[in-house]
Amino acid sequence: MLRTPVVRLDGLWLKLEQLQHTGSFKARGAFNRVLEASSRGAVPSAGVIAASGGNAGLAVAYVARELGVPAEVYVPETAPALKVARLRALGASVRQVGREYADAYEAATKRAADSGALFCHPYDQAEVCAGQGTLALELEEQTGGVDTVLVSVGGGGLMAGIAAALEDRARVVAVEPENCPSFHAALAAGEPVDAEVSGVAADSLGARRAGEIPFAVARRTGVRSLLVSDEDVVEARRALWADHHLVVEHGTAAAYAVLLTGAYEPSPGERVAVICCGANTDPADLA
Amino acid sequence: MLRTPVVRLDGLWLKLEQLQHTGSFKARGAFNRVLEASSRGAVPSAGVIAASGGNAGLAVAYVARELGVPAEVYVPETAPALKVARLRALGASVRQVGREYADAYEAATKRAADSGALFCHPYDQAEVCAGQGTLALELEEQTGGVDTVLVSVGGGGLMAGIAAALEDRARVVAVEPENCPSFHAALAAGEPVDAEVSGVAADSLGARRAGEIPFAVARRTGVRSLLVSDEDVVEARRALWADHHLVVEHGTAAAYAVLLTGAYEPSPGERVAVICCGANTDPADLA
Repeated sequence: MLRTPVVRLDGLWLKLEQLQHTGSFKARGAFNRVLEASSRGAVPSAGVIAASGGNAGLAVAYVARELGVPAEVYVPETAPALKVARLRALGASVRQVGREYADAYEAATKRAADSGALFCHPYDQAEVCAGQGTLALELEEQTGGVDTVLVSVGGGGLMAGIAAALEDRARVVAVEPENCPSFHAALAAGEPVDAEVSGVAADSLGARRAGEIPFAVARRTGVRSLLVSDEDVVEARRALWADHHLVVEHGTAAAYAVLLTGAYEPSPGERVAVICCGANTDPADLA
Repeated sequence: MLRTPVVRLDGLWLKLEQLQHTGSFKARGAFNRVLEASSRGAVPSAGVIAASGGNAGLAVAYVARELGVPAEVYVPETAPALKVARLRALGASVRQVGREYADAYEAATKRAADSGALFCHPYDQAEVCAGQGTLALELEEQTGGVDTVLVSVGGGGLMAGIAAALEDRARVVAVEPENCPSFHAALAAGEPVDAEVSGVAADSLGARRAGEIPFAVARRTGVRSLLVSDEDVVEARRALWADHHLVVEHGTAAAYAVLLTGAYEPSPGERVAVICCGANTDPADLA
């Protein structure tokens, strides 16, 4: 795992986690999930299994390769050829099943039950959330501590890991696009519920339902929720490139957007960190 | 000025100086040039003046704005409208003169003599080289010291600043594209001489002649010179994005290319740093 750098820009800390192996924070959780099992001698010969054509799948494939265990990754038949090729390049066996993510997920869990492989969930496992939380401990060490962490949220694993790691020491603000509001909807309903997901950031933040574990951690620790429009996300991603020479994916830009729009206004002296959580993006439109 | 972060990748240190204000290390030298004059009360009311449509011009415009002094920047009539617009957005008065950089340079030095403005050379002034050298002192502090610094070279200001800052503590390897070999040619001739410059990195490394001051420092400190092909530069820039999620300009990628091609082979245990010196580039071709 990389210790990703921080940079201080315009009075903000940015955690450059988009430079992590495979381009997102997901490697942290995947490493922790597999290493925890390994420490108990519980990584089966069938290896590990995941369902994701996105950042989580790449991370599991990478971690499996680094640890020398086989990986199967389930994706929908509709997954872009480029994503499938990247998974294969990392040595994973790719299975294309069904038309939607839910089909691939169901097939993966069934396969895990049959083969005994270790299932690596993209967010709703304690080891995964805890692994993502290592980012926050690094951040704290690198900055000397912050008051507020702005983080984009999909299924909630990163949010939960940060909130648990910094409990009582920093507040966490969960930012979602209006078009991917699963955590916002869960807070409103008092429990994880299905939400409609679409828009520019759906490839990384498009979990339909917040994870049970992340939701429980977020409620216990008082994570606050903010929404931004897709237009604001696009503008924030452009600003990160044009003003700061950082290329991130749309999902990441959501967390930065709340500062540009004023949806989050830091108090004087407030120490704020923005988590740049991923860069699996096509930079062509930043030209 | 930003304290730019370092990241450790594949056993290498990368200094992410492309995140510096205006997207390159040039702000360091420009700040030092103007602040040194300011400390002597020697910044005239006419302000500062530079000749560059590239990174050096942007940096001088930025520094002048930050310090509240007027800036005039001379560029050729052939300068792209985008570069002129960026300089104007930073508040500089842009003068377009002649067809080539040499014409703009001549007009700028003449204007400086007439107006009394402080001329900020892109590389051949002691304050400029020393300012660039602050990057090396940061690097040393952030890494605990390195044995070797790989740096791309145009006019040589950054190379000289690093070599002077780390004299007797690290070796400096100057990397140039075969199509922009002004330092290589100077070493061969025993003094700065004109070289033909062209190719993918000419916008940032295309100084026709190495600076007198950089050359003297480089010779005294034993800076070594390596050349890479434009194809290797293009490939290295792509690899930095595809493998490490870093977007840099072609000029920067030259320093990394010598590792990919094996033109520079670190010894076991050798602590090597690559300076990512700029990101003023169009990322569209990284798609």
